[in-house]
Parts: sequence; structure tokens; C-alpha cells
Amino acid sequence: MNINVIISPCGLEELYFINKTVVVIDVLRASNTIINALQNGAKEIIPVAAVEFAVKVSGGMFGGQTLLGGERNTKKIEGFALGNSPLEYTDSVVEGKTIVFYTTNGTPAIVKAKFSEYLIICSFANISAVAKILIKKKKDFEILCAGRNNTLSLEDIICTGYLIDEITNGKKNIPLTDSAKASLTLYKTIGKNIKKFLSETDHGKLLINNGFDEDVVFCSQVNSSEVVPVFSNNSLKLS
Amino acid sequence: MNINVIISPCGLEELYFINKTVVVIDVLRASNTIINALQNGAKEIIPVAAVEFAVKVSGGMFGGQTLLGGERNTKKIEGFALGNSPLEYTDSVVEGKTIVFYTTNGTPAIVKAKFSEYLIICSFANISAVAKILIKKKKDFEILCAGRNNTLSLEDIICTGYLIDEITNGKKNIPLTDSAKASLTLYKTIGKNIKKFLSETDHGKLLINNGFDEDVVFCSQVNSSEVVPVFSNNSLKLS
Repeated sequence: MNINVIISPCGLEELYFINKTVVVIDVLRASNTIINALQNGAKEIIPVAAVEFAVKVSGGMFGGQTLLGGERNTKKIEGFALGNSPLEYTDSVVEGKTIVFYTTNGTPAIVKAKFSEYLIICSFANISAVAKILIKKKKDFEILCAGRNNTLSLEDIICTGYLIDEITNGKKNIPLTDSAKASLTLYKTIGKNIKKFLSETDHGKLLINNGFDEDVVFCSQVNSSEVVPVFSNNSLKLS
Repeated sequence: MNINVIISPCGLEELYFINKTVVVIDVLRASNTIINALQNGAKEIIPVAAVEFAVKVSGGMFGGQTLLGGERNTKKIEGFALGNSPLEYTDSVVEGKTIVFYTTNGTPAIVKAKFSEYLIICSFANISAVAKILIKKKKDFEILCAGRNNTLSLEDIICTGYLIDEITNGKKNIPLTDSAKASLTLYKTIGKNIKKFLSETDHGKLLINNGFDEDVVFCSQVNSSEVVPVFSNNSLKLS
């Protein structure tokens, strides 16, 4: 089993993902919003790579069953029903609904990987459930970090390291690329206290400054869910 | 003093660098080749972002005083006088010469940062000399890692961490971004034995497989030079 880590989708072609098993990680906050929405009964999430496309896609759907969700610069987008705070996606709001979803880094990363053979969403919340699936598959896979503005996001890298640690479980014979090695090392050194480090990341600090303290705490929960969102026919559903 | 680390030039605009102080790091091997060429008496290095451009630039120069150097896929380019092995750039070869230089990741990174107010080249070889200059300047600066194929290169990140460690010298009040924090942590954990980790990186292994073992050893030398190449008027010269 080979594990490759992509620290940001920047510079990658969509066709790179053909035939690949891919895990997308966007800890703050898209992964957690998607997991929580499906946990709370949403029918599906349709990730889109542009706000304009979100409006277009939702316009063609039956009224009442579709919600627009997402953020730009951490804030809810004008005219959208929901932002990118996982806490907004309660069962009374999302049950049975299709959510067309746009975020700055997370949904473009998912859309870029749309040609993957198998594509799932991971965060600390479902890390053991994701690890179990990958161990069972016994196939090479890629971890695609959404990153931030084309660069590294410490929370995605550390979540990646945690996932690799769960999967390799101390085995030394699994070959690790530079970025996999970096992720594992960062998890083991500065990533053990998730709530603390998350609030000290660039993105964590920005969210806290914008009043999203509770989101940062929510996103630091580990193994609070068994939900593993799977991408198929352009939407994310329960596995 | 704020320190920002860019782990790969992917997705950045040239104009981003206007008014900035920038350190470019490409440990394997462009930084070391440039440092060694200037150390051994080369007049200047002209970094270019495309092979075709290298040929064009050198064509307009006086014969005999200009050499073409660089690599594609680690190997010397057909028709070029020199590859990207720092060991080739001896005094008898480069003294008094202008070298037009192309490499896969290093020179495109330098060219992308060409609008910087002040741009210098760093590797383990000149790390203390670079640190001294930046400490004296007392200005915010950016460390631009050349990276590899739009992603993280462990050797560039660890060299970055080493440079930050030299400059901050344990001071806690210097704010670090996510990528600066990651670099410093990786240097302190897996980066202390430079010769060993360098031979185990993705790029180090590739070079060794292609017969460039000696280059990897050469590039692991720390503070073997006082040369700090400075970019000005499209070429790199001694500071």
C-alpha cells in the first residue's frame, strides 16, 4: 500500500485522479459541515467549484428540497440559506434536503478530484471510520488536503498525519513520500492536543476573530461520527 | 519581524513579491549550484524560467563568455555546457563567465520572485551568512521554497526551519504562520542529521538513483560558504 499526500490541489490536473482512491480533508470547516449534514439526515451534498455555479445548479432543482450553503471569506454568501458552520446543519434544517455547497478551498478540491475511482471525505470527526475503509481496501491511496489559498494548511496536514498513523499503526514497511512523512511527524509532535493546536492555526485564528469559536471547538472532536461521505454522480452521500 | 513561508510558488502571482524581501531555497540542487558557481568566480548567473528562453538569452551574448547550464529531469540538457551538479562549476570552468541557468523548480521560482525589493539565494551551505543579513535588516521577509512539481519538498522545508531557528534563536515573540511553524518543527524533529535525511527525501533518492550521490553529499554541507547570491537586474551576483 502506497500513501501519497497532496498538500494543496494547486497545479494538479483533474485527470490526475483517474483510477485513484482519494481522501479529501478540509478540517476547517467543509469536511465537518458535510459529515454533520449527512449525519443529520441531508439527502446529499453537491459540491461546486464556483459560487455562480452553485446558483445555477440550484436554480434547476425543485423548490423547497434544495438549499444553498457555503462561505466566501469565512462568511455566509448573500442569498444563501446556510453558511459553512457545521452547527447550522441541524436535522430540522437539512433532513431530506439536497444541499448545493460552495466553500473557498474545500469544494474546489473535491470537484478537482471528481474523476477519482473512489472519493471520500475525512476530518478528525470520522477518522477511524475512514481508516477502517482504507485498511480494508488494501489499495494505494492519495490524501488530498484542501489547504488554504494554494498553500499548506496545518490542520489538514495534521489530520492527514493522524489518518496515516491510524492506518500504518507503527508499521515501518509502508513507503512514505516527503509530504506523508512531514504530515506524520507534525501530527506526532504538535498535533496531539487537537483543540489547542486548531485554535492556534492561521485559519483557526481567523475563524475565532470572525466569531466562529464554536465551530473550531466542534471541528476538534475526534471520532464523533461513523459517517463517511462518498462522492458519486457529482454528489456526496452516506456510504 | 514577520516571517512567512511559501512552500511552493504554485498559484502565486509575480506581483505578489513587489516591495518584499525574499529568500529562495532550492537545496537539491539549484541553490547550491548558484552559490558554488559564484564562490568559484563566475561573474553572474542569469536564471531563466524556460529552456527555450535560456537558448535565446545566451544567443545574444558574446561567444566564449557565456555558458548554458541546467537540467531537465535531473539530467544535463542537450546542447548545454553544464548540468545542475554544483561539482561541475569549478573555478577553471566558470571563472569570469556569465551562466544562463535553467532548472525544473529552482530557476522558475527565482524568476517568479523577480519583482522582490531584495532577493537572495539560500541553502544549508550559506545559512548563517543569510541569517546574519536578515537579522541586520530587521524587516519582514518571505521564504520561498522552490518545492517539487508544485508541491512540498522536505529538504527545502527543513532548510527553511533551520534558517528560522537561526534567526529567531529561541525568541517566542516572533509570530509564525502555519508553514513557518511546520518548517521549524520538521527541522527540529527530523532535520538535524542533514546528510541522512537528505538522502532519504523523494528528490534525494531520485538523484542517488541517477548517479548523483556526490551532489547529495555536497548539498548537505552546512555553512561551507559565505557567499550570498543577490538578484539584481535579472542576474544573480555576489552580495
